[in-house]
Amino acid sequence: MSTYKTISEKIFSDHLGRDVEAGEIVIVDVDFMMGQDGTTPLAIKTFENVGAKKVANPEKVAFIIDHNAPSPSEKVSALHKLMRDFSNNYGTKFYDIGEGICHQLIPEKGHALPGQIVIGADSHTCTYGAINCFSTGVGSTDLAIAMASGKLWFKVPQSVKIVLEGSLSTGVYSKDVALYIVKNLTANGATYKAVEFEGPVIDNLSVEARFTISNMSVEMGAKVGLMKLDEKAENWVKERTDKPFKSYEPDEGAKYEKIYKFDVSDLEPQIAEPHAVDNVSPISEVEGVPIHQGLLGTCTNGRIEDLRIAASILKGKKIHNGVRLIVAPSSKDTLLKAMNEGIIQTLVQAGATVVAPGCGPCVGTHNGVPSDGENVISTANRNFKGRMGNNKAFIYLGSPATVAASCIEGKIADPRKYL
Amino acid sequence: MSTYKTISEKIFSDHLGRDVEAGEIVIVDVDFMMGQDGTTPLAIKTFENVGAKKVANPEKVAFIIDHNAPSPSEKVSALHKLMRDFSNNYGTKFYDIGEGICHQLIPEKGHALPGQIVIGADSHTCTYGAINCFSTGVGSTDLAIAMASGKLWFKVPQSVKIVLEGSLSTGVYSKDVALYIVKNLTANGATYKAVEFEGPVIDNLSVEARFTISNMSVEMGAKVGLMKLDEKAENWVKERTDKPFKSYEPDEGAKYEKIYKFDVSDLEPQIAEPHAVDNVSPISEVEGVPIHQGLLGTCTNGRIEDLRIAASILKGKKIHNGVRLIVAPSSKDTLLKAMNEGIIQTLVQAGATVVAPGCGPCVGTHNGVPSDGENVISTANRNFKGRMGNNKAFIYLGSPATVAASCIEGKIADPRKYL
Repeated sequence: MSTYKTISEKIFSDHLGRDVEAGEIVIVDVDFMMGQDGTTPLAIKTFENVGAKKVANPEKVAFIIDHNAPSPSEKVSALHKLMRDFSNNYGTKFYDIGEGICHQLIPEKGHALPGQIVIGADSHTCTYGAINCFSTGVGSTDLAIAMASGKLWFKVPQSVKIVLEGSLSTGVYSKDVALYIVKNLTANGATYKAVEFEGPVIDNLSVEARFTISNMSVEMGAKVGLMKLDEKAENWVKERTDKPFKSYEPDEGAKYEKIYKFDVSDLEPQIAEPHAVDNVSPISEVEGVPIHQGLLGTCTNGRIEDLRIAASILKGKKIHNGVRLIVAPSSKDTLLKAMNEGIIQTLVQAGATVVAPGCGPCVGTHNGVPSDGENVISTANRNFKGRMGNNKAFIYLGSPATVAASCIEGKIADPRKYL
Repeated sequence: MSTYKTISEKIFSDHLGRDVEAGEIVIVDVDFMMGQDGTTPLAIKTFENVGAKKVANPEKVAFIIDHNAPSPSEKVSALHKLMRDFSNNYGTKFYDIGEGICHQLIPEKGHALPGQIVIGADSHTCTYGAINCFSTGVGSTDLAIAMASGKLWFKVPQSVKIVLEGSLSTGVYSKDVALYIVKNLTANGATYKAVEFEGPVIDNLSVEARFTISNMSVEMGAKVGLMKLDEKAENWVKERTDKPFKSYEPDEGAKYEKIYKFDVSDLEPQIAEPHAVDNVSPISEVEGVPIHQGLLGTCTNGRIEDLRIAASILKGKKIHNGVRLIVAPSSKDTLLKAMNEGIIQTLVQAGATVVAPGCGPCVGTHNGVPSDGENVISTANRNFKGRMGNNKAFIYLGSPATVAASCIEGKIADPRKYL
């Protein structure tokens, strides 16, 4: 057994009170768990089907209505009611329509802390790795069992390290870095691995920008995208909770299945073209593709910094005739901050349509389904065929700056000329 | 032939250049026409089916996407694309997602002027009567023929007069008056009639508050709800357009099928109970009914004054646990004004979910379909069974103040205690 441990090995060892290493199958207490309205109804049904009588730790469970907020149909409303009723009966936490996207709310409300093990019935639960939390997506049945028992089984993952060297030039953001990494590792390049991101590029990013990178780690198959907790991240957490926590750094001699190094100093804005997240090109090769709709938001890039960047480009300008720009703030808190800063006003004046905080347009459930043959430029994390509700539409992924610039021009545009 | 004419008779006579009176069937030039995304696709198909080659006056036609904004499904997106493509091909005006509700935009953008004849493929087109415009709802096929020919046939309607005497007490609004009138005349009490509203109560109302009353005139079957153009209304119009217009007052001896007089000095807030708009009771008889959802918005009560009233009640308060309050501003202009005044911020802080300007929740197309058995308190104009997308839900109608107070208490509540 190795004396030197990765972040994941340390978190699992501390939770179990014994040394564990990658590859072991373990059952651990889960510190927090959540489900959204796309996955929770099945978790509730499973919970009932297995005859569970109570939720082990209701204070460690949150349900969030974000995929269809507000409800677009009678069928969905029935599922929302199922969730509300269950939450009332069992005393779990509940975030109703308008509160925001699960992956924004869980860290924002202090439900995911450094050093914890957090699960969510949503693939992008890997996001909270940016604050040193081992967080990962699970299926609805796993969530049901964890709700009933407080525990879940894991195979402690092997780790890979990604070192980001150099510094980002103006107009290039963490989203561009994330796309570039996914391109290089490919969509299954880190399957079932814990990724650890480090290096001066990460150090220089804001915590919000780091979330974008951790969020997209599942796009190469990773279970989680972990980062060390530096002072910046520690402060971010402490501003949101008084709860105690412990953070973990990997040991010098820890075992990584692979270590990647990327110098991103010369990186230009990146675009993922349809229909795969790893189908990434520098923007210079994609510029000029006509755009019918833009999406600014999602758990990847719907935070206040993202809205700020887009607003700084759109201020005093109008989106191109024939382009719709949909803005979905990541949470109520983000929306309020953005209104206080005049950002929402700027976006609306530029022609944007602001929808309620939530996931809708990204997951194709409502609030902006594109038409046949239309091209969308989006800050989301996925551009799979049909992702936005129409399998005859084409989704391009980029940074908030790239989305803003492209909506001004009506075609994919390099944001650097607006900065 | 009578020498003394109603407002409608005067408008039709001036358009035709000859004296006409109620009962005549005439064909007239239409000054403006509009369709929304629920009705325009069928108008376009009819336009094509009859072999029309061009739109007679494209500058007099507007299409507005408000019923599903942004699109909640692939099917609806295809209809939106049909509208956009038609508008691009034929040069008609177009208001895309996020611009607002047709009945707010048409007068706001100066498309409906005093003395004009305006049609819309939406039943609440009667709204612009408040600025002395003969405006009325038509079917999609009528819109198609009017698009192709620039004209439409009408039977010049008989008129009824409603005189509103006294003055409204604090906490009682034009919405309460509208509900009270519909109760008294019943849902078919003015079928195919032009209603003329007058009296000191109308004189004292703001133009925005008057729209609420004209808007609801179709709830008793009326073709239009006309008012004289006083200085207040004339200024309202002139602030929005430079175009010339002429206004009309009824002659002293004009012929009315019936004249109603209501003294509303003692009126208390009114509630329309499920499932009919004329099923109206004073709030004292309905108070305490539990509420699961509130809706503040719609072409009836989604204007800046309505949001102001609700915000003044909700300021510093929280909506009741278990209640969702959905706010749909009537237009982009309303939204921007409301953000500039801090109203949207107040509503969101109180727990409201603000959706994109549009009709969605009122017409049950998306953005807030209630669950089975739920009660909704709404500022809309209709509470028919299934109206909001679920025929097992129950809709109560009231003023913005009543909706705000009820959302605070989680049950239907008299707003007067909050003023």
